[in-house]
Amino acid sequence: MARTGRRKGSPDTRESILDAAREAFGARGFDGASIRTIAARAGVDPALVHHYFGTKEQLFLDTVGAPVNPAELVPSILDGEREAIGERLVRLFLNVWGDPVNGPRLVAIVRTAIAHDWSARMLREFVVSQVLRRVVTTAGVPPEEVPVRTALVASQMIGLGIGRYVVKIEPLASADTETVVAMVGPTVQRYLTGQLPLSCRT
Amino acid sequence: MARTGRRKGSPDTRESILDAAREAFGARGFDGASIRTIAARAGVDPALVHHYFGTKEQLFLDTVGAPVNPAELVPSILDGEREAIGERLVRLFLNVWGDPVNGPRLVAIVRTAIAHDWSARMLREFVVSQVLRRVVTTAGVPPEEVPVRTALVASQMIGLGIGRYVVKIEPLASADTETVVAMVGPTVQRYLTGQLPLSCRT
Repeated sequence: MARTGRRKGSPDTRESILDAAREAFGARGFDGASIRTIAARAGVDPALVHHYFGTKEQLFLDTVGAPVNPAELVPSILDGEREAIGERLVRLFLNVWGDPVNGPRLVAIVRTAIAHDWSARMLREFVVSQVLRRVVTTAGVPPEEVPVRTALVASQMIGLGIGRYVVKIEPLASADTETVVAMVGPTVQRYLTGQLPLSCRT
Repeated sequence: MARTGRRKGSPDTRESILDAAREAFGARGFDGASIRTIAARAGVDPALVHHYFGTKEQLFLDTVGAPVNPAELVPSILDGEREAIGERLVRLFLNVWGDPVNGPRLVAIVRTAIAHDWSARMLREFVVSQVLRRVVTTAGVPPEEVPVRTALVASQMIGLGIGRYVVKIEPLASADTETVVAMVGPTVQRYLTGQLPLSCRT
């Protein structure tokens, strides 16, 4: 798992790039902001941004202080039976949130994302489009069904994260991982590969 | 539907009761705060609190600025076939959130609730315990299964509300009501009355 702050550099330059990135992502969204614009805003060469942060994805993760790169977790969800992707996705999600170091940081990120329009947009563009959509696409459903299935999976995962870790609804908050996997996994699996009324395909 | 500010009184007295209520609900939660304590804190007689706000439930709703009293909506969810409670719950939820006046106020309340511990507790104690639990209880499941089923229903409803109206994930955000009902209703119905592994009964 990628850790933030992995690449060291001049603290000042690093910080001005992060500030510029926060502004750019906030104003234009994840898709709209470019490394070139961020570099210009920070008054540095784009190559320096790549040197310090690698990809735009990693720069984004460092900007929000994400403890893990969700994209790196995708292969382990896809590895195994197609009928159990839902369970593996829920299990991995619970393991990341349940981590004593990462969990509280994720709660803080989600609280910020829900409170502000610009970070809600980040959550949508990054977690939904970059991460969940990859899982759904690789689950082998018709391409035109990918957006709605992704949105449905996201709705259950967001609600599970907030219900269990932020609002702390019992007995969901203290249930063991495998019980939650058995209860919520089938919902996610139906959204991923089950029969759905798909009149809102886009 | 009950509207806030229905009962008029001296604006000063009304405001001091609301301030006292906010403090008391924040410190002790919905269940822990009493009309008596709130009245004492505001320096008025408990009868005056009842006169201005009616029940503790209505006082709470006025405190958070809730546009509707969710408890008043419960009967319409329960009226009809048991196998379609999930669909009716989702449909009603979408109608309340989709209302051009109430919707934006609900988004504001949820954003506050997620951002602060004390209001997350309010959301849990009030919406989950007072409202959703009534729906689940009346759905006729064994009493020991009510808490976990309520929590699961809450997880999907929270995620649907946030995904569709706050984070605005497409195509879920612009799908018509009946399409969402058909997609998410079966999930809620399974959580309400379906077969679940119930080892985390409380």
